[in-house]
Amino acid sequence: MAAPGENLKINGDRLWDSLMEMARIGPGVAGGNNRQTLTDEDAEGRALFQKWCEEAGCSMGLDQMGNMFARREGTDPDALPVYVGSHLDTQPTGGKYDGVLGVLAGLELVRTLNDLNIKTKHPIVVTNWTNEEGTRFAPAMLSSGVFAGMHEQDWAYGRKDAEGKSFGDELERIGWKGEEKVGDRKMHAFFELHIEQGPILEAEEKDIGVVTHGQGLSWTQVTITGKDAHTGSTPMPMRKNAGLAMARVLELVEEIALSHAPDAVGAAGHIEIYPNSRNVIPGKAVFTVDFRSPQLDVIEDMVARMKEGAKKICADMGCEVEFEKAGGFDPVEFDEGCVTAIRNAADRLGYSHRNLVSGAGHDACWINRVAPTAMVMCPCVDGLSHNEAEEISKEWATAGTDVLMHAVVETAEIVE
Amino acid sequence: MAAPGENLKINGDRLWDSLMEMARIGPGVAGGNNRQTLTDEDAEGRALFQKWCEEAGCSMGLDQMGNMFARREGTDPDALPVYVGSHLDTQPTGGKYDGVLGVLAGLELVRTLNDLNIKTKHPIVVTNWTNEEGTRFAPAMLSSGVFAGMHEQDWAYGRKDAEGKSFGDELERIGWKGEEKVGDRKMHAFFELHIEQGPILEAEEKDIGVVTHGQGLSWTQVTITGKDAHTGSTPMPMRKNAGLAMARVLELVEEIALSHAPDAVGAAGHIEIYPNSRNVIPGKAVFTVDFRSPQLDVIEDMVARMKEGAKKICADMGCEVEFEKAGGFDPVEFDEGCVTAIRNAADRLGYSHRNLVSGAGHDACWINRVAPTAMVMCPCVDGLSHNEAEEISKEWATAGTDVLMHAVVETAEIVE
Repeated sequence: MAAPGENLKINGDRLWDSLMEMARIGPGVAGGNNRQTLTDEDAEGRALFQKWCEEAGCSMGLDQMGNMFARREGTDPDALPVYVGSHLDTQPTGGKYDGVLGVLAGLELVRTLNDLNIKTKHPIVVTNWTNEEGTRFAPAMLSSGVFAGMHEQDWAYGRKDAEGKSFGDELERIGWKGEEKVGDRKMHAFFELHIEQGPILEAEEKDIGVVTHGQGLSWTQVTITGKDAHTGSTPMPMRKNAGLAMARVLELVEEIALSHAPDAVGAAGHIEIYPNSRNVIPGKAVFTVDFRSPQLDVIEDMVARMKEGAKKICADMGCEVEFEKAGGFDPVEFDEGCVTAIRNAADRLGYSHRNLVSGAGHDACWINRVAPTAMVMCPCVDGLSHNEAEEISKEWATAGTDVLMHAVVETAEIVE
Repeated sequence: MAAPGENLKINGDRLWDSLMEMARIGPGVAGGNNRQTLTDEDAEGRALFQKWCEEAGCSMGLDQMGNMFARREGTDPDALPVYVGSHLDTQPTGGKYDGVLGVLAGLELVRTLNDLNIKTKHPIVVTNWTNEEGTRFAPAMLSSGVFAGMHEQDWAYGRKDAEGKSFGDELERIGWKGEEKVGDRKMHAFFELHIEQGPILEAEEKDIGVVTHGQGLSWTQVTITGKDAHTGSTPMPMRKNAGLAMARVLELVEEIALSHAPDAVGAAGHIEIYPNSRNVIPGKAVFTVDFRSPQLDVIEDMVARMKEGAKKICADMGCEVEFEKAGGFDPVEFDEGCVTAIRNAADRLGYSHRNLVSGAGHDACWINRVAPTAMVMCPCVDGLSHNEAEEISKEWATAGTDVLMHAVVETAEIVE
């Protein structure tokens, strides 16, 4: 199969204009977007995407989870399509690029192939996965999860938002519930372009992240019980200070994560102290330890060492400690062939690149279970995401989409 | 001046019965009391106390802050009175003894002197200080503070409860606002019996705490600003984890307090983390460091070392740190003569005793500024106070009141 020529480039201005036009739907309060899944704004965004896809000569498929599939035909009727995409829904105070870039980059590469009259053996299908964010209806990556067989469809339909409305009812209400059975499509490969949502590429001035793995994570809720007592009248040796015990566990979490440098990470983002009064020694501390690594055995080792260490810390201080698994998912190893296609594309195009482990979850993490999959990442300013101030440059978006296109068309096989 | 004979003892059963009868007014929901200051229940408790005092032959004085002064005459019309007392108000979920014991012990010693027809040169005045707890109208020890010239009376009148009612209006409403100017009374001495509200006496099986000092305290609100970032996609070396920086400062607080063992203490009871989400590295931590010591220079040293250490910890982690003084009061050194009278009384009566530093604030801490003052403490179960489960034994209450009586009548001088 022939690689595309190094001069094959997308139209960065057109991509950017489409990003800005989509961002006008469901504007945020601070320059970003509030286009949450299955709202009227989501429906409006979907309609615009469909219009663009049809103008680009694609036919639109729609499955029972509302996943959209815009197909550009290939030359071989028997060849499985190469899928490319991400999600159009946003956080309530989200940015203009998280997810949206990956969908519109798929559309832009189709437009570019049309402009240059390039044909591929395999069809190319641009996909919008429903409810990637999971803010309105938990969990995140819900519909790619159903597609990959990770969740039951009826269970997904029953997920409720804060007002008690169900996913199934809202999908029907906005008019984007299709007839097609979910997960029946077979894929030759799946590619997703996404902003990094982390600081590495910008800090190292790399154009492209070649995502080799998705980090697995384990959340452990730790409850330390000491004894609440007056901060004035309780001598130091008679204290059972659950807050201090927590502090020592936090230090241990840092030490354990650093011992698996550079890919493993660990921290506690959620901390509650009881009774949380200035003159009462904390009698209870509840906090969630988040460990992540691209290797399952490393995650398991970190959790085990944290538990063992926390038990010792608490025993030495006269405190009790309990652990509860509060969530987790296994690491993802993306397809070697797809990863190589992305790395080769970046080399061919002259973009600087480095391997990345995705710290966040993405639709690609689920699709990787049913098809050869990989991800491209582009930098984002200051690593900021899930925030209306999320920002990227047109150049970053262009480079990422160029690489995405090269990987897709090489995999879909250009017909000379 | 002659010391009382070792056989002079109060009537422990009568004291206990009075404690139990007072506890029927403003009962709590779990066996304790809710007799907050300037409520109808407070008025009812005051009326019962007045009735008992009048039955014991005392005359009742009442000042403009509602402080009550039940006077048993002495033989010398020119001798200043010896004052004894504490407070009848309770926490919303308070115990039956915090404050109440000190007032009713004063009444009991008057009853005992009456029974035995003992006369003293100096009058004895049993005092109930208004609003010691400070829960309904902050701050604590409000009316003894006005008496000692620490607060302006008009400012005190303007203090508001959670419903917006003022101290002055509520004092008038319950009918306990007197005519007498606050703070005009001159005292020969002041004695206060209080439960320990700490675990030392019970743990060491001592009957009596001879309170030599009141701890001073300093509250420093510490705000550490790092950078909130995704727990998955931010490599360890690029983090500015304000939660971890806080953990290191908490360890430092412990280390500093222990360096001034045994009397100094330090802890953080109040901790807030932002944004406090499981998958976001804390970008901000706000917590209050509570340092206490009976020596002002030690408190100042501890605060200075904490600030210096926290600055270094935060600088090393790329975080910012700010400090704000959130409260404090200077240590109290009680009057040597009064302290000796208490220690001698315990020796004479054969009660085991040890010196104590009061960790909590008490009316005696303010009165010490205008009169020779000291405190007696008795044990309380498990150090528990400000809790409906607060408990003491009749024997502990009796021993404490015996010692109080001996110190008071020695100071008031028995007339043979």
